[in-house]
Amino acid sequence: MSAPRILIVGGVAGGASCAARLRRIDESAEIVVFERGPYVSYANCGIPYHIGGVIEPESKLLVATPELFRTRFRIEIRTGHEVTGIDPAARTIAVRNLATGAVSSERYDALVLSPGAVPVKPPLPGLDLPGVFTVRTIPDARLIRAWIAERGARRAVVVGGGFIGLEMIENLRQLGLEVTLVEMLPQVMPPMDPEMVAPLHAALREHGVRLALGDGLASITPEEGQTLGVRTASGAVHPADLVILAIGVRPDTTLAKAAGLALGERGGIRVDAQMRTSDPHIWAVGDAVEVVDRVTGLPTLLALAGPANRQGRVAADAICGRPTRFGGVQGTAVCGLFGRTVAATGQSEKALRRAGRTDFGVVYLHPNNHAGYYPGAARVSLKLVYRIPDGRVLGAQAVGTDGVEKRIDAIATAMQFGATVFDLEESELCYAPQFGSAKDPVNLAGMIAANALRGDLPVTPWEEVGRAWVLDVRDADEFAEGTLPGARNIPLAELRDRLSELPAGGPIDVLCGTGLRSYNAVRLLRQRGFDARNLAGGYATWEMRRGL
Amino acid sequence: MSAPRILIVGGVAGGASCAARLRRIDESAEIVVFERGPYVSYANCGIPYHIGGVIEPESKLLVATPELFRTRFRIEIRTGHEVTGIDPAARTIAVRNLATGAVSSERYDALVLSPGAVPVKPPLPGLDLPGVFTVRTIPDARLIRAWIAERGARRAVVVGGGFIGLEMIENLRQLGLEVTLVEMLPQVMPPMDPEMVAPLHAALREHGVRLALGDGLASITPEEGQTLGVRTASGAVHPADLVILAIGVRPDTTLAKAAGLALGERGGIRVDAQMRTSDPHIWAVGDAVEVVDRVTGLPTLLALAGPANRQGRVAADAICGRPTRFGGVQGTAVCGLFGRTVAATGQSEKALRRAGRTDFGVVYLHPNNHAGYYPGAARVSLKLVYRIPDGRVLGAQAVGTDGVEKRIDAIATAMQFGATVFDLEESELCYAPQFGSAKDPVNLAGMIAANALRGDLPVTPWEEVGRAWVLDVRDADEFAEGTLPGARNIPLAELRDRLSELPAGGPIDVLCGTGLRSYNAVRLLRQRGFDARNLAGGYATWEMRRGL
Repeated sequence: MSAPRILIVGGVAGGASCAARLRRIDESAEIVVFERGPYVSYANCGIPYHIGGVIEPESKLLVATPELFRTRFRIEIRTGHEVTGIDPAARTIAVRNLATGAVSSERYDALVLSPGAVPVKPPLPGLDLPGVFTVRTIPDARLIRAWIAERGARRAVVVGGGFIGLEMIENLRQLGLEVTLVEMLPQVMPPMDPEMVAPLHAALREHGVRLALGDGLASITPEEGQTLGVRTASGAVHPADLVILAIGVRPDTTLAKAAGLALGERGGIRVDAQMRTSDPHIWAVGDAVEVVDRVTGLPTLLALAGPANRQGRVAADAICGRPTRFGGVQGTAVCGLFGRTVAATGQSEKALRRAGRTDFGVVYLHPNNHAGYYPGAARVSLKLVYRIPDGRVLGAQAVGTDGVEKRIDAIATAMQFGATVFDLEESELCYAPQFGSAKDPVNLAGMIAANALRGDLPVTPWEEVGRAWVLDVRDADEFAEGTLPGARNIPLAELRDRLSELPAGGPIDVLCGTGLRSYNAVRLLRQRGFDARNLAGGYATWEMRRGL
Repeated sequence: MSAPRILIVGGVAGGASCAARLRRIDESAEIVVFERGPYVSYANCGIPYHIGGVIEPESKLLVATPELFRTRFRIEIRTGHEVTGIDPAARTIAVRNLATGAVSSERYDALVLSPGAVPVKPPLPGLDLPGVFTVRTIPDARLIRAWIAERGARRAVVVGGGFIGLEMIENLRQLGLEVTLVEMLPQVMPPMDPEMVAPLHAALREHGVRLALGDGLASITPEEGQTLGVRTASGAVHPADLVILAIGVRPDTTLAKAAGLALGERGGIRVDAQMRTSDPHIWAVGDAVEVVDRVTGLPTLLALAGPANRQGRVAADAICGRPTRFGGVQGTAVCGLFGRTVAATGQSEKALRRAGRTDFGVVYLHPNNHAGYYPGAARVSLKLVYRIPDGRVLGAQAVGTDGVEKRIDAIATAMQFGATVFDLEESELCYAPQFGSAKDPVNLAGMIAANALRGDLPVTPWEEVGRAWVLDVRDADEFAEGTLPGARNIPLAELRDRLSELPAGGPIDVLCGTGLRSYNAVRLLRQRGFDARNLAGGYATWEMRRGL
């Protein structure tokens, strides 16, 4: 048997990982990577920060060069080569050299598609005007930097408040531009639950970003004086010298579709657990494929670099006949914005509701990132979503300034093993005063949820607040500074002596600052025969829910 | 049945947690806590930082006061009361009021012992001299602060380089004192493997701390001019105005022993999974008890606040007849020193060797804490110990300046579920350029170990270096700056063309900077028929092993 000829379409993340892995497994294979852009293996996650001048020079974004692939891996990289068609029957691809226009046909034994995703560009007027950009590649970064420098751009409109949108906002502010965010939804970071990103809305406002939330893009028009006008559904017009479209991405399935490969229900290339497409000689990896969500078991799209790299490795193993399996994704992600961090893993509450599920509970907590008595302690707001009745963790979200992503990493790792909230109660995590607490926020999240599941601490869903008598057990001075509508105040320390003031029959929703005193109050009251329930996360949760 | 009377001996960590939990479960129980010291529920983990003036004022160390226990929990706290004996048959304890000397007898239905640990004070001359201190309680902190202030102490000797010793060193330097560390072992942080704490030795030296490692304390003698002389086994004398004994702690089993309770083989109070002692009406929690190590299945002692709190909860549940179980410990711990962080979970290599085990492999890696192209990336050195042949993770240690403890937290969480290195390969962790890498250090650790286990990347144990031909595949300029004794240099990019320079028969140990290029070289060479093996973690590991 002669050495196999393996062709890879797309040389970033998944494709580059696959190529390197192939070489490590099979020294004899001929491996050729076709990339339509000028670069392979670049850090597209860093592009917003390069635009902002945080990452300099541009060459830092180049994780590996074609030269390195050639000398280190004996892998041939053909940049500036676009694959225009696949003939699965003949096992050939058609390749166009973008510099010369020449088209050639290349034979393969195995083909790996790693075309990535393309920015969503809805069919609205003006999206192709000069000054309107998407942010995906190094050439995109060059165009944006040049436009800002040459035009002296002062006002930017960012359309879309997801990862890329927020990172671009931070970096455009870093460059001194005025920034307006236009987002169709009433919140930034669409994958997360709205109340969990309220602190980001506050951070954006603090940093002078104008927010046009709940107001979708309608059109972009040229205005006088070389500016643009960004019109929204509400009729508002936001003037801009520069518009960033960060509405989202969709799998680039052009080639796959044309070749007759099966697509999945979410519109990505369909692959099996070995990343093989519907054609036995073609694999696909990265942002273009549909993968299984570990939590729901359903197909999903997830355009993130970590899973793309793992998929590249799996495809390489599979091509070389090794046993392998891509276990799915859970959607772990993090975003930094003006010193805040927001992170999540698994399912959000809204995703579960959208899927029609009601078999879950939700708790909130707002502990410090480390021992409160050590200087610099700061709040981490955490939301845990778990299955009823078995307590399996379905998802977690967190926001704060420090120690945020490490809690999500711990919960994500636990979820990998199908953890329950009872497991999180017991996790043994690093503790010293400057790093955590003897009861880590992860433990506390597990304890609160476990208390709810065991019936010790029934939780009233926040959306049902107002139906029951609300008891605020904080001290009088805290109560005076603000509470829930209609709440009565009996400080916890006085509660045992003032039980006669409580309604004997109906339910009582108990509130405190972050949920600890209310926990003690609920336990006390339930043992005295009251139908007391906890408002999870207390007034801090209320403020996040109100602060949208 | 009348309300049970539950007495708790010791009001810190485990005892305080148990008391609060008892009240939440049983509103009717009579709960009394006896504490010989003046405070309950204080943050003894913060004491070194209070001595250094980082945590001020002292009252910040008081997590909860007797008054709070009384008003919030209706729990009676008797500070300044020492329990002097237990009569298990009569179910009574003898209590001495330390202020009045009065002794009383107290009846219990259930008794919880949470006496904690006491600092080890070997029977050496001079350890009771004025100016010699242990660091455990708030009164200890007061004495040390007063001594430094009143004597104008300038020179301190810290005996013992564990957690407390290192934290004391940092804080004494913070106060401007000259510090010498006397440690019997040739390393600080005795639970960790020596090479993993080499960066701490460097940090200590950088901060002007004199190290007397491998040189145990022999005696302390009064010297002229109100100073002390700390004599070591080698005969050296270190002058000191202040000596901190931080040699370690041992379980305080005085009461338990006198009451005839069974002790375990490690000298702690023996308890079952419900934290019950050999007497059916007596439970014990915290630093005084022996617990099961989750990794080895063997009894162990672990004086840490997190497990103590969990044990307090378990005991409370057990006393109230609820199903509960303490699942054991894995020894997750972290320590900060002069901006470095060192953290560990599970078994160290030396602990396994001491136990006679040989069924394990070891890998090292030195990735950045976050994407290298984002400013501020810093190395995290990680060591993973895993069982052969199934890959079960036995332990992990890490050291660096940032992002250290979050990797240990993720691995600790995985170990809770019996994770293998194959699981770590797949963990889906938070990634954005300022937080991590698409292949997180945790993933990389799993991949490297998995490569070794699959036979793709055999690893030469570092202690065997020198037996085989050593090939350094770094570039010539790196090689010129330092390499292993006898190593030859063929840069990876030239390797395929220079295979004839390699020895055909015997083994070849391959080295690079941190282990990535050597991985590729080993794969290349093995496929060409060479018996190539990897030196895990490359020259960075060599430097740590040399830097002791």
